[in-house]
This record gives sequence, C-alpha cells and structure tokens, in this order.
Amino acid sequence: MPCPFCNPPAENIVYEDDKIRILLDSFPANPGHLLVVPKRHITNIEGLNEEEKVMLMKGVEMAIKALKEALNPDGFNVGINLGKAAGQTVSHLHVHVIPRYKGDCKHPEGGIRKAVLNAKDENLGRQDKRLESKYVEILRGLLNEK
Amino acid sequence: MPCPFCNPPAENIVYEDDKIRILLDSFPANPGHLLVVPKRHITNIEGLNEEEKVMLMKGVEMAIKALKEALNPDGFNVGINLGKAAGQTVSHLHVHVIPRYKGDCKHPEGGIRKAVLNAKDENLGRQDKRLESKYVEILRGLLNEK
Repeated sequence: MPCPFCNPPAENIVYEDDKIRILLDSFPANPGHLLVVPKRHITNIEGLNEEEKVMLMKGVEMAIKALKEALNPDGFNVGINLGKAAGQTVSHLHVHVIPRYKGDCKHPEGGIRKAVLNAKDENLGRQDKRLESKYVEILRGLLNEK
Repeated sequence: MPCPFCNPPAENIVYEDDKIRILLDSFPANPGHLLVVPKRHITNIEGLNEEEKVMLMKGVEMAIKALKEALNPDGFNVGINLGKAAGQTVSHLHVHVIPRYKGDCKHPEGGIRKAVLNAKDENLGRQDKRLESKYVEILRGLLNEK
C-alpha cells in the first residue's frame, strides 16, 4: 500500500509548505481532527532534523490557532503514536491535533492516557465525524492567510 | 490545592535543569510513564516562550531515549491534554511520555485518538503501574549522565 501521507489526496490538504503539510484526518476522532505531517517519509522523532522539528511545532501551533478561530473548541489532545504497540497505523510520523468539545465523551478525564485502555477505537474506520466542507474552507483560509 | 508540578515531591523528579523537569507520573498509565514539565506555571502552549519550547522538545527526546535504554518498550504515546474537555486534570502544562508494551491493552490501534472514547480512565487514581524503584534509579542515571 502506498503511504497515505507521502502523497495525500488534495482534498485532505489544508496547508502545505516546503517541510510540512497539515491534513484532515480521514477517520476523524472528532470534527476538525487535523494531522501535522513532515513531507519526508520519517517514522520516528529521531529521524527529524532540527528544521523539521521547528516546522512541526510551528505547524501544531498554527493548527491549534486556526481550529480555535474556526470551531471554538473547549480543548485539544495533541500527540503522537510511535510504534504499532502505541497504536500507530501509518508508519509516516504524524502529530494528531484533536479538538475537544464539552460532552463529546462521557469521561474526558485522562485524555491521551486512555490510549492504554482496553477499549477499541470505534472511530478508526468511520467517517461520520468529518468536518462540514464550509468549515474546511474556513480552516484553509485561516491557515493560508499571508 | 497547591499545584503538584510547581513543587513536585523529590522522589518523583528524575531530571531537572533551569527550564524543565522530568517527573514520574503519580498515577501511571503504564510502568515508566513520564511527564516533561516546564518549571514555570504555564497552562497553554501559547504561554511558552521559544526557549521553553525548545527545552520541552529536548526533554521529550531525552525521556524517550532513556526509557528505550532502561525499559526497551515497543512504542510510545507522546502528547498533551489541553483543557478540561480534553482530560487535563492539572492546569500546569505537561507532556506525557507513555511507554507502550506489546499486549498492554487489547486494542492498541488508534492510540491517543482513544481519548475521545466514552471509556473511563481506570488508571487515573491507581498506582499499581508504578515503576519498580531499581528502574527509577536507572532512569535517573541515564537522564543525568554528563
């Protein structure tokens, strides 16, 4: 299977520069779930050079800022799954930026700590939390403002 | 309640410099669960200055490297819960570094995406996944090597 983050479909790209892309997650955990991805096919944090690290951090901050303006969420989970045992399903490094909304789940306490629970990710493989296209355009506009 | 990350108990500190600390999580999701924490009481990523951002990133890399050497895990979940709706329970910004081990849960797929599931974090409030003290000393040694 070709890597979905090396040549992502154009409709999933909301921002792109020479080092990183910001993508819509294809199977979002919540509406507005974004991925900040280095363009190079890198698996681990150790594989990033210094410039890519800075650009990834900047991309995460840009994603948070744009999501706040576009969707006014109540919080964010930001993070990386490294390795299959940690739930990584695509081996191309990617930082999840998941906007959170009050009431979006029954027990928000713990956040990303819940990765270790026995529960199955029922959103992985479903697309019913996709962001409405009008908001995708708002995000694109905010991320590409000069 | 005083902030637990402004003046953490000495036994939880495995590394400290002028900008950050690396702490043992008091209610670990898995053995070796670490927190990389700025010394200043900051709530949001936006509150970090550039130097603190670099030091936090460096702290995460140090934590991963030391955990690999000390515990040889099969993966990591690395990330931040921002806001109560995202599961943040201590308002002082902290980056979770959670080592993952094959078979530590039934459905690792999804990783930090599982933060949004209805499941309750049964480890939040339990201490039975604490790291054995001999490994704590190994981690301290690795993190403080000159």
